[in-house]
Amino acid sequence: MSEPGIVTLLTDFGLDDPYVGIMKGVMLSIERRLTLVDVCHGVPPQNVAVGALWLSHAFGWFPPESVHLAVVDPGVGSERRALGVRASGHAFVAPDNGLLSRLALASPAFEARQIDARRLGLELPSRTFHGRDLFAKVAALWASKQLRFEELGPVVDDPVMLSAERPSDDGANAEGRVIAVDRFGNLITDLPGKLLERAGAVLELEGRRLRRVGTYAEAREGECVALVSSFGLVEVAARNQSAAVLLGAGPGARVAQRSEPA
Amino acid sequence: MSEPGIVTLLTDFGLDDPYVGIMKGVMLSIERRLTLVDVCHGVPPQNVAVGALWLSHAFGWFPPESVHLAVVDPGVGSERRALGVRASGHAFVAPDNGLLSRLALASPAFEARQIDARRLGLELPSRTFHGRDLFAKVAALWASKQLRFEELGPVVDDPVMLSAERPSDDGANAEGRVIAVDRFGNLITDLPGKLLERAGAVLELEGRRLRRVGTYAEAREGECVALVSSFGLVEVAARNQSAAVLLGAGPGARVAQRSEPA
Amino acid sequence: MSEPGIVTLLTDFGLDDPYVGIMKGVMLSIERRLTLVDVCHGVPPQNVAVGALWLSHAFGWFPPESVHLAVVDPGVGSERRALGVRASGHAFVAPDNGLLSRLALASPAFEARQIDARRLGLELPSRTFHGRDLFAKVAALWASKQLRFEELGPVVDDPVMLSAERPSDDGANAEGRVIAVDRFGNLITDLPGKLLERAGAVLELEGRRLRRVGTYAEAREGECVALVSSFGLVEVAARNQSAAVLLGAGPGARVAQRSEPA
Repeated sequence: MSEPGIVTLLTDFGLDDPYVGIMKGVMLSIERRLTLVDVCHGVPPQNVAVGALWLSHAFGWFPPESVHLAVVDPGVGSERRALGVRASGHAFVAPDNGLLSRLALASPAFEARQIDARRLGLELPSRTFHGRDLFAKVAALWASKQLRFEELGPVVDDPVMLSAERPSDDGANAEGRVIAVDRFGNLITDLPGKLLERAGAVLELEGRRLRRVGTYAEAREGECVALVSSFGLVEVAARNQSAAVLLGAGPGARVAQRSEPA
Repeated sequence: MSEPGIVTLLTDFGLDDPYVGIMKGVMLSIERRLTLVDVCHGVPPQNVAVGALWLSHAFGWFPPESVHLAVVDPGVGSERRALGVRASGHAFVAPDNGLLSRLALASPAFEARQIDARRLGLELPSRTFHGRDLFAKVAALWASKQLRFEELGPVVDDPVMLSAERPSDDGANAEGRVIAVDRFGNLITDLPGKLLERAGAVLELEGRRLRRVGTYAEAREGECVALVSSFGLVEVAARNQSAAVLLGAGPGARVAQRSEPA
Repeated sequence: MSEPGIVTLLTDFGLDDPYVGIMKGVMLSIERRLTLVDVCHGVPPQNVAVGALWLSHAFGWFPPESVHLAVVDPGVGSERRALGVRASGHAFVAPDNGLLSRLALASPAFEARQIDARRLGLELPSRTFHGRDLFAKVAALWASKQLRFEELGPVVDDPVMLSAERPSDDGANAEGRVIAVDRFGNLITDLPGKLLERAGAVLELEGRRLRRVGTYAEAREGECVALVSSFGLVEVAARNQSAAVLLGAGPGARVAQRSEPA
């Protein structure tokens, strides 16, 4: 008896409504012994950029060959494609809207196929909930080895990439943005944490200089500081308080690393 | 070795407090190998109507013989009965307060029994948390085949039904209400989606006419539209915005389908 | 084949962000067949007192030998110790900041050891997320019997205890505080419920006298009442409303039981 698979779920559905539960029901109806694990469902509604960030930093902590089901899907029912992807030893099922674009940038090998629902014999009873009608089914079939990557549909060479600017970096100074705010009010930026190791590195958020520390506990009461997040990115935080509230800053805020003479 | 069962959970307990976790502990203490799946726990506190709606549309996506544990229980500790129900090939455990009434209306065969805690030898250490002390135990025993439906207690012929008005329908025009608002601000009504297929059908919410579309993506920026939800009900939605906010409408708002001459 | 273990999770991480999901990924990477169960993740950020309360009342409902992973960790990355604990037939992994102090007070046998990450060969890639890098790993290794309690590190005789005042009690009158507010707006106090059984017992919250009832349903519309919670503690509640809102009270509010002549 082969080991049943793991499917992780990441959506913007929240957990108040039954949408995530229904997707799990669909998957257990296909393979009763799947292990289903929530990555998170609190991606802000329709916010593909935050979904892409969380997914790219979460999947690697799961066992290889896990199937990661990601649904942030403002274009559901329209012509947007549905993708199955193989990358970094993991599998991914998601709408083709940029949700996998951080993964694509970070993965040396990134193979994508368009999911051909008709060829796979998958009914689409609704035009508004492909998480249930398409993505969950494909994830469950794939994780339980009832479906192989090569069978999903035609190869895709041009997956949609998020148009958002990448951080700029001239080797001494870099500029990026706040992408997400977590429950603690920490501001997660798109700047790699190693920038803080540059000689004379200082960090500014919207022009405000922040002291660099190693842990939250090093911040003074009421002080906002810069540190390397557990994802390896520059993070702006406060001690036992919300940096987002203290700074009045959120997604989109500009953050700059500058190198100053000693 | 027989397959251990599935228990789904639907409550108004939220996930911030440990109540749902404790119910799971109780069930795993009865049968270690049960599969426990959250349907949702964000039913508005004491809102039996929303719980009944979500339950009736969620259970059918799970494998047959799943046990569905539903606890929205403002009358806990009072004389309200506790029910075990068999319907549509599934099993249900819930307080007798209308939570199963949508299920009862939709299921050709609906058999109910009153759970007789004393006869089953179940202790009730509290008068305020029968989800833990009664419903979770019965669900786990039933799902793991340590208890049969016939053993639960006496047959119930008069389960409590929600008193709320049903939608009216004269064959050409129908009127109903908004029952729930989901995380996206979509307004879920009790009108069957097929009403939108009537010749000359138009939809009005609180007197405001809404365009009918097939997918969210067809709505214009800032426009509220009517479509058939993934549950097969009429839903009012906006594109990447909350229809509830745009319309200032919520549960109880009146919605009407009218047939107009071509 | 030995039975794989149970790990429960209690944190202040919330479920909107991927932190809890990542910890689960780490644990499944260590032992694929672990049963992972959320106790709750809505402990108010950095609120060790609420975490300690929920943990002490939740763990006992799980099967013996469950491993309870608790992370409310404002001092992460500082010198605070990491603990492994054996008590009441269960296992616990948590920062040494008082999170286990209610458990310690309630457990006749409470054995603690400091987790020695270096000796265990555990990498700490971050200084800000020991939930992922340390606690989840130890919990998974312990639950799957790849690590024994005695191997964790040196014995700890002086675990950090919460400095908060204990309830005072002179045998006739007692005073305590509201510790937590749950989703329903119920105020959970630290007064043992049996105080309400004293002859002539009355309860006051911030000087306001509250009627004692047995169930929520006994309260009148708009009335706040005292009852024994499902945890065996004095709880202040209202019927289908939030007592916290009605009374304008929250954590820290003073609550007193007085004995009055008949």
